[in-house]
Amino acid sequence: MAKTGPFEQLQTILAPEMAAVNDLIRTRMVSEHAPRIPQVTAHLVEAGGKRLRPMLTLAAAKMCGYSGTQHICLATAVEFIHTATLLHDDVVDESDQRRGRPTANLLWDNKSSVLVGDYLFSRSFQLMVETGNLRVLDILANASAVIAEGEVLQLSVAQDLATTEATYLQVVRGKTAALFAAALEVGGVISDADEAHVTALRDYGDALGISFQIVDDLLDYGGASAALGKNTGDDFRERKLTLPVILAVAKADKTERDFWVRVIEKGRQTDGDLDHAMELMGKHDSLAITKEKALDWAETAKAALKPLPESALKTLLADLADYVVSRIA
Amino acid sequence: MAKTGPFEQLQTILAPEMAAVNDLIRTRMVSEHAPRIPQVTAHLVEAGGKRLRPMLTLAAAKMCGYSGTQHICLATAVEFIHTATLLHDDVVDESDQRRGRPTANLLWDNKSSVLVGDYLFSRSFQLMVETGNLRVLDILANASAVIAEGEVLQLSVAQDLATTEATYLQVVRGKTAALFAAALEVGGVISDADEAHVTALRDYGDALGISFQIVDDLLDYGGASAALGKNTGDDFRERKLTLPVILAVAKADKTERDFWVRVIEKGRQTDGDLDHAMELMGKHDSLAITKEKALDWAETAKAALKPLPESALKTLLADLADYVVSRIA
Repeated sequence: MAKTGPFEQLQTILAPEMAAVNDLIRTRMVSEHAPRIPQVTAHLVEAGGKRLRPMLTLAAAKMCGYSGTQHICLATAVEFIHTATLLHDDVVDESDQRRGRPTANLLWDNKSSVLVGDYLFSRSFQLMVETGNLRVLDILANASAVIAEGEVLQLSVAQDLATTEATYLQVVRGKTAALFAAALEVGGVISDADEAHVTALRDYGDALGISFQIVDDLLDYGGASAALGKNTGDDFRERKLTLPVILAVAKADKTERDFWVRVIEKGRQTDGDLDHAMELMGKHDSLAITKEKALDWAETAKAALKPLPESALKTLLADLADYVVSRIA
Repeated sequence: MAKTGPFEQLQTILAPEMAAVNDLIRTRMVSEHAPRIPQVTAHLVEAGGKRLRPMLTLAAAKMCGYSGTQHICLATAVEFIHTATLLHDDVVDESDQRRGRPTANLLWDNKSSVLVGDYLFSRSFQLMVETGNLRVLDILANASAVIAEGEVLQLSVAQDLATTEATYLQVVRGKTAALFAAALEVGGVISDADEAHVTALRDYGDALGISFQIVDDLLDYGGASAALGKNTGDDFRERKLTLPVILAVAKADKTERDFWVRVIEKGRQTDGDLDHAMELMGKHDSLAITKEKALDWAETAKAALKPLPESALKTLLADLADYVVSRIA
């Protein structure tokens, strides 16, 4: 991405606040009695995550003219929830790599990932409680429940070819969009922004999160150009029903359906199956249609910003929606 | 236990409130979108747990003359935190049995246990937020963090013969006593009880929890009489450094130390090792001393109640401390 893309511009504008968030992350992830906690957390927190979600909280607060210090607490809480989710996800997915590095469950064990995730989750609630703002607590507690619900739903429908696009959207709204939406909403709430502006921020976050996840799922099949790289095909091997597959399954004839039953439902995959899956997705335009849907959600995100007054930050958030989908352009 | 023991008397006195808690547990554990959640939860929640922790919240509130409805929410929140902890513990311990039934991780999978635990944990925070009481939120968020810290500490010192009694106490305070203490404290807080009474309730819970866990750890070696049953020896096989072993290791001569290094640190256990461990614990009075310490903590619990005005419930809580250790009498 260009050095002057919206993400870098947000990083520059929010640099002092992000520095404060990074300090608070480091202060709060320590544990006096259990030194393994900061080790596990540091592995993940320092691993060069983009800190996109806390940045959204900071951007929302700044846009709404917030002048206090609670946005730092809340942005940190949001990042802790995200990190806890990643730790638990890696246990659930039995992953061994994240962001090109070995996962915590591989370096330590599943036990540490589960318990350190729980610790960070509790720490995030402590940070929210410190704001003394019950509405913010309500929003983030709800988001946490919706995230877990989305993850369980994903697990329940895994390997189930009957999964519809509607169910996929529900999973994505839970596991990804709920935290994006809450991250932005709380930024507006602590600023005592107009309700219409708070709603706009939440709706923008929801659509941005959906777009973000669809792009992620599309990139797992090499993007719309279907250029398979070394990190592609993970979802296929894990037999996940993401949008590209759901769309192809919906248009499958009898022979194609038998193929999907074998590789996804029964999990009997052999060499060449991923290539054949790609062919079927090409034949039915699944990747192109998935791309269109990601672009549509980016447009929905931009449209949601309309009620907010014009500002440099508003423009950057709109550009961010375009940037998120630019990875599949 | 006798039909008229303190636990049954508490159950009788608090029956209407416990019925309300059970209703709320059932209402709040459902999930519209992820039907696996109530399945997994019901398996555990309906499995005949004693509901000791929520009962402590209800007892504390009633003792302090509370007349609202928040104690129902908080008792449910406390039970959800406990259930979430059990789900995650079973993943961590790789258990296949709890309360004589197969664990959720065996019936479903580790993934479901992790994610449904997360869901219940979020639901517990939603319940706390509903009380609108920030002090209660603070107490329970802190307790949750301390629980996770205690569990990680336990993991870090597992199989480490250098574990001291002080470290053991820290683990026990975290993984068990923190929730007992918080369960009682919040009952006092919502009742606007005198600070001295709130402190008394918390201190009682802390000591009761420690006593409870020491008894549990002692029973794993058959109690002070060392009568091994079919459920004993689990901690030994899992190479956990609980008090009976810590005390025996502290007094070990060279040969005995080599034994402990082999079976606990290196985990090379063979037939007869548990019997030999029991002999060593007998030789050094480890089980008898562990029993004394459990009794001491029960006395500490009873003494902590002193500032509270005399009442039938206060007497029952004191009796409950005796009852907890009566299992090893």
